[in-house]
Amino acid sequence: MTTKIVFYGANASTFQPGLAEQLDAPHQITVISDAADQPGEAQALAEADVVVGVHYSVAGVQNARLFQLPAAGYDKVDMDALPEGCAVCNAFGHENAIAEYVMTALLSRHVPLADADARLRRGDWLYWAGGPGGLRTEMGQQSIGIVGHGHIGKAVKERALAFGMTVHVANRSRIGDPRVTQHGLDALAEMAGQVDVLLNTLPLADTTEGLIDAAVLAAMADGALVMNVGRGPVICEDALWGALKDGRLSGVIDTWYSYPAAQQDAAMPSKYPFHTLENVTITPHMSGWTTGTIARRTQTVAENINRLVRGDALLNRLR
Amino acid sequence: MTTKIVFYGANASTFQPGLAEQLDAPHQITVISDAADQPGEAQALAEADVVVGVHYSVAGVQNARLFQLPAAGYDKVDMDALPEGCAVCNAFGHENAIAEYVMTALLSRHVPLADADARLRRGDWLYWAGGPGGLRTEMGQQSIGIVGHGHIGKAVKERALAFGMTVHVANRSRIGDPRVTQHGLDALAEMAGQVDVLLNTLPLADTTEGLIDAAVLAAMADGALVMNVGRGPVICEDALWGALKDGRLSGVIDTWYSYPAAQQDAAMPSKYPFHTLENVTITPHMSGWTTGTIARRTQTVAENINRLVRGDALLNRLR
Repeated sequence: MTTKIVFYGANASTFQPGLAEQLDAPHQITVISDAADQPGEAQALAEADVVVGVHYSVAGVQNARLFQLPAAGYDKVDMDALPEGCAVCNAFGHENAIAEYVMTALLSRHVPLADADARLRRGDWLYWAGGPGGLRTEMGQQSIGIVGHGHIGKAVKERALAFGMTVHVANRSRIGDPRVTQHGLDALAEMAGQVDVLLNTLPLADTTEGLIDAAVLAAMADGALVMNVGRGPVICEDALWGALKDGRLSGVIDTWYSYPAAQQDAAMPSKYPFHTLENVTITPHMSGWTTGTIARRTQTVAENINRLVRGDALLNRLR
Repeated sequence: MTTKIVFYGANASTFQPGLAEQLDAPHQITVISDAADQPGEAQALAEADVVVGVHYSVAGVQNARLFQLPAAGYDKVDMDALPEGCAVCNAFGHENAIAEYVMTALLSRHVPLADADARLRRGDWLYWAGGPGGLRTEMGQQSIGIVGHGHIGKAVKERALAFGMTVHVANRSRIGDPRVTQHGLDALAEMAGQVDVLLNTLPLADTTEGLIDAAVLAAMADGALVMNVGRGPVICEDALWGALKDGRLSGVIDTWYSYPAAQQDAAMPSKYPFHTLENVTITPHMSGWTTGTIARRTQTVAENINRLVRGDALLNRLR
């Protein structure tokens, strides 16, 4: 029997190249638009055995036994709108990419590579070892508090430890890693007060929204750094603006409160003008987006389709 | 008996703060200029029990039992000009700093943080995950060939492995690390042909000068990256210019062929105009220069002075 696979939307379709080669059984692949309003697209959705997508809100899926996200965050998928017997699974594989983003952002605060290069091109040796002007600090002598010990948290932790950083982790369950100091998610302020860098890696859920609030940010030392690569609203928008606007904290913020409808649209990422602050690095939810992430996620999607066909237990099952 | 300690020159004197607190026995600390030509300086040098310095060429030291470098490279110390009974020791402690420089330089080639920030400040979401424009590559999927497995090579190796890089090491003696592929120093071209990044960490010596020559660079794949944080002339100047000038390779070069007499002087770092190339990041021998390096080296200097006074074996003895 041929498995009918529908890639639903532009984001999901990014993961289609290379998929067919990894499938064991006969299959038919269709790519449809995000609105699912072109000729034949509603029928493709209705008849699909597997839908690969990052969002779902309208009705239309009827027969599918698997809604597979080629991504981790499932806050845009209305599970109640899917047929009862349809499993929902997500995919990770972005953790190495996000950890590289995090370490780049942290290291670049210590190593003034671009300025040193620009100066030496003018014959200026300011940063030469031995002189007082170019003396810098080390990331490895700093401490980081990682909120969440999932795929992202673990990937950042391993790299931070390799640099010699002091690592704290806040997590719901015990992580049992003697190399780090653990805190409960209900004691975030306690951890925030002990670290140079507070990094959120948590996804958005009822239990995580606003978890990093004004009290947590107030506990951080002056000049400390708050980072977000999880989901924007895990950090209270008002509290984040309050802590950053006068320069008390620094920020590296990749995940936001407001997103444009399409990538081409010009839009600011918050109701507050974070884009006017010099103490904040703002990036457009880019941290996980690499060729490696796509390859690893395509592999997970293929593996789950193969498991579905064989009748084996699915990976990363959300329901 | 009071130990007479002379800090000889501006660079060495950087390591003086905090030293006294770490010394066990009575001592007297004098700081003199690089030229040693101010009143009393010649006498201080003549009477010193310990000279802390990074260069030595003129005569003047007479009684010293220890010439202690607060640095690793001893190519500016003329050992023959020192009294016969004077031990010479160097200090490391720069390896974490240099490894941070290396990883910053590598990561920044993959994560376009500054451009993403500048764009989002204008409302431009080019790098948003899901879109084709901002897709990037991962450092962790690349391979690095580290020339030299001393303090620097080992520090870079541990961090590269934490990111998932494929690591090759070229070293004179067997290193016995199953996580990496080892090559002999006489087979550099073989290693160079297998890696995305070739990193020199070796100091300058008769056996290392010009070790990375035209043949080694010619073996590298088009678009590969050559880095130098060891000493400039370990890579043949003519060959490096030849490989970089037309953009066949990229470069990150921190250690050079020409240095200014003083940090304030404007000077170009080579007879070739590397400063005109866009495919090369040029920095002024800065990679190891951090507060952490100074603290670790000061600790080594103090430890060796304490050992000298106690009559114990010295650390990092060169002769």
